Amino acid sequence: MKTLKTLEPLSNRLLEIQRINSAASVLSWDQETYMPAGGGTARAEQIATLQGIAHQQLVSSDTERLLGAWLDLQTGLALEQDGELWDESSNALLREVWRDYSRARKLPSDFVIRLSRECSLAQQVWAEAKTQNTFKSFLPNLRTVLSLKREEAQHLGFEGTPYNALLDVYEPGSTVAGLRPLFAQLKTGLVPLLRRIQQSSVQIDDTFLYHAYDQARQLEFGRLVLIAMGYDFEKGRMDLSAHPFTTSFHPTDVRVTTRVYEHDLPSCLFSCIHEGGHGLYDQGLDPTHYGTPLGESVSLGMHESQSRLWENCVGRSRAFWRFFYPILQATFHHQLRAVEMEQFYAVINRVKPSFIRVEADELTYNLHIMLRFEIEQDLIEGKTNPEELPGIWNHKMKEYLGIVPSLDGEGVLQDVHWSTGAFGYFPTYTLGNLYAVQFYEQAKQEIPHIEDEIAAGQLMVLRRWLGQKIHRWGRMFTPDHLAQRVTGVSLSPEPFLRYIERKYGELYRLDKA
Amino acid sequence: MKTLKTLEPLSNRLLEIQRINSAASVLSWDQETYMPAGGGTARAEQIATLQGIAHQQLVSSDTERLLGAWLDLQTGLALEQDGELWDESSNALLREVWRDYSRARKLPSDFVIRLSRECSLAQQVWAEAKTQNTFKSFLPNLRTVLSLKREEAQHLGFEGTPYNALLDVYEPGSTVAGLRPLFAQLKTGLVPLLRRIQQSSVQIDDTFLYHAYDQARQLEFGRLVLIAMGYDFEKGRMDLSAHPFTTSFHPTDVRVTTRVYEHDLPSCLFSCIHEGGHGLYDQGLDPTHYGTPLGESVSLGMHESQSRLWENCVGRSRAFWRFFYPILQATFHHQLRAVEMEQFYAVINRVKPSFIRVEADELTYNLHIMLRFEIEQDLIEGKTNPEELPGIWNHKMKEYLGIVPSLDGEGVLQDVHWSTGAFGYFPTYTLGNLYAVQFYEQAKQEIPHIEDEIAAGQLMVLRRWLGQKIHRWGRMFTPDHLAQRVTGVSLSPEPFLRYIERKYGELYRLDKA
Repeated sequence: MKTLKTLEPLSNRLLEIQRINSAASVLSWDQETYMPAGGGTARAEQIATLQGIAHQQLVSSDTERLLGAWLDLQTGLALEQDGELWDESSNALLREVWRDYSRARKLPSDFVIRLSRECSLAQQVWAEAKTQNTFKSFLPNLRTVLSLKREEAQHLGFEGTPYNALLDVYEPGSTVAGLRPLFAQLKTGLVPLLRRIQQSSVQIDDTFLYHAYDQARQLEFGRLVLIAMGYDFEKGRMDLSAHPFTTSFHPTDVRVTTRVYEHDLPSCLFSCIHEGGHGLYDQGLDPTHYGTPLGESVSLGMHESQSRLWENCVGRSRAFWRFFYPILQATFHHQLRAVEMEQFYAVINRVKPSFIRVEADELTYNLHIMLRFEIEQDLIEGKTNPEELPGIWNHKMKEYLGIVPSLDGEGVLQDVHWSTGAFGYFPTYTLGNLYAVQFYEQAKQEIPHIEDEIAAGQLMVLRRWLGQKIHRWGRMFTPDHLAQRVTGVSLSPEPFLRYIERKYGELYRLDKA
Repeated sequence: MKTLKTLEPLSNRLLEIQRINSAASVLSWDQETYMPAGGGTARAEQIATLQGIAHQQLVSSDTERLLGAWLDLQTGLALEQDGELWDESSNALLREVWRDYSRARKLPSDFVIRLSRECSLAQQVWAEAKTQNTFKSFLPNLRTVLSLKREEAQHLGFEGTPYNALLDVYEPGSTVAGLRPLFAQLKTGLVPLLRRIQQSSVQIDDTFLYHAYDQARQLEFGRLVLIAMGYDFEKGRMDLSAHPFTTSFHPTDVRVTTRVYEHDLPSCLFSCIHEGGHGLYDQGLDPTHYGTPLGESVSLGMHESQSRLWENCVGRSRAFWRFFYPILQATFHHQLRAVEMEQFYAVINRVKPSFIRVEADELTYNLHIMLRFEIEQDLIEGKTNPEELPGIWNHKMKEYLGIVPSLDGEGVLQDVHWSTGAFGYFPTYTLGNLYAVQFYEQAKQEIPHIEDEIAAGQLMVLRRWLGQKIHRWGRMFTPDHLAQRVTGVSLSPEPFLRYIERKYGELYRLDKA
């Protein structure tokens, strides 16, 4: 049996490339956290240079030689050799390296550099346009990025729609044809449920949210929850940024960011738990495989499943707050002493159509995704003129959520994704929501006392389970294979729909009419 | 006349390399400011990878071709071509690129990577050893670094001592033969002066230093001074680190760090001004030349001249405090209301042999440098066994300063330099001290009202002068040529000795006996 040992020359080569990519990630993290405003243009070029070099190295004759010794570079199939078989890890490594290599090979290095540079610049213009609520000032950059992404799809090749080429980058194997029925089933389940909730007579008193909450204490509490989750601050840190995110430079250096507002307690709280879920995944990857696909997360949908599992299944559960609410009350004694846990629970689970995706409840969140999925597909297919985007956005908001934003900043400009060229990324959020529930239901089956543990503040039990089942495997299995290994079945919207019906049915006292 | 336009293909190539080096600088900055402890090993490898790539690109056949079109790569002499001459900028660019290229070419890329990695690791071991005061635990890393630096000197080649090869890296053109008489002259001037000061009957009351000074307010004051100096926070930032430093990723992103202690007011204050001086140089470089030698500082001695000019000639002058002392008093009303400016001036200029170089007064500072200069020369020449270093250190401290540290952390382990392989760096500090005074005396001659401006808080007059005379030129002139352009003469210790005699003669009421 041939093992990873045989592949060491290839792994060492990949390690070099990963170090360059990690360096680019440090530069991006700095750009979002500490970089002075004036440094943006130079930074865009520095990141583009590193990404160009990483790309060149991945498609270089060196890599080709090392990979081509074992695989047919055109098909990715193993060459017939001495008859000795590869072990499972080696097979997975070769499969995933070939995936990366063959994708990279289709993109010219100068295209990669141009895309990186234009996206960094567009992101900076977008940030300003968002603040100013002026879609028009972002439009030229959006056009540029869009045309580059369409060019990218052409380079990559696709079946059906060019959008498929982009989807596959974030969620290997996902296609419009696969997602559409999933989303349709969700819509069929969620839209009537939303109507029933909106007709419910249950009133949720959220006046306590309007108090001021000291920012330093909010951050302290967020940090406390992260530590309880098992996030290791010796191998990570938490900073502030306009948009919370998680990034990793190595399993020993995984960073989360959050934001904090005096008059928005849930924002910091849930962004900490959410990013903490991402952080645990990255800290849980096997450091001995750093640099190879076996040391990388398997997909964005799977990554999001970890953040959403912690944020929603755990962080919006009664079990969690049974332990943490008394601490939160002690932290904000003045504001919360008269607020019962049950009221707090209701407020953090309240369903209410709103403009901002990241602040949406668990139900309407997916409607936000569906409208973006439709819009970006049309943009990539050239069916929509980017100029018309604000109108289309508002129309679809009305259709899906029944509300229309009056400002671009809380409408079409709210998300960073399109400015960074991340078309095809949004669907992974809904995949994450679905995976999250499917995994959590499985965890409850395998560890029947898990909610008692959580209610006792013992979050490490769940963390270990996720580490064993998901984190440590890296890209050993495809997303679908991993889902099957963990839960016995492929991804399905049903566990999520059951969970949502149960949770909100109880909260809003809905009759099963 | 051939201009920089002709050299654009070469400049563009250099720009790519600079971006990689700048990225490595971001990673180093992060390592010293925000990186979690666990991330150190991976970081060392990431930086080493980038430095290895930058080195490979500098010595690549591409660069050779672009440079070799104009120069004899062996000698650096211009090739006879169409007879058309190069303009001054182009001549300078070619001269300096060849300097970098021909030095880099002598070093194998794997050596560069090994050196970078070992130095990053040694630095981390040193930091721990310093805290623990255990020289022994640092010794193995010191041996490794030392042996690599001796190997480096062999690769580079040298006349006289291998130490010359290392000196030249930091201060082009400097040699032991050149530095020795300079240091001897300084010693002859300073040691008797120190003795006279120590015999002076002047008593300086420093009790106000023993108060507590709020750290946030200290930082606020430091920031205020930086702004007054013209340091642009839109193109820079100030953070905390164990050892204050300045680093630049581009003239639009120049970062300084400081440290702050509740019971050490001068530490934060003077490190802010000192690093601010460095920062002004880097922010004052011409951004259109970023990537080429014309966009880089000319030498470490020249860089240090800028920090020391601001820290000492300005920041320890009566003129400066005439404006800023009332603000400092208002900031720390309770601690300073009863302290006259004259007393404050005396305390911040007090001469007193002490263990720590960076806290030394302007006189004894150079004695700290001299002992390091002697020690590191012997280390590189193999005359000293590293094991004996603590003993040698203490012996020389006794000889030069009359005091002996009891702990390695405040003795031989106090400076980071040797752990990072920066042998040959220390002399540039004294060069900086000498240049600083020589430049400042020139500024006073050219702008007779400069001290009135400073006393009115108008620091920008000086900043502009320095920008015009020094910052904007990058490496257009050699250090010596630049000194001559600015002051009419080469570097000399005499202005410094006159300044020191005058300053301390007055403060300590010394008779010109």
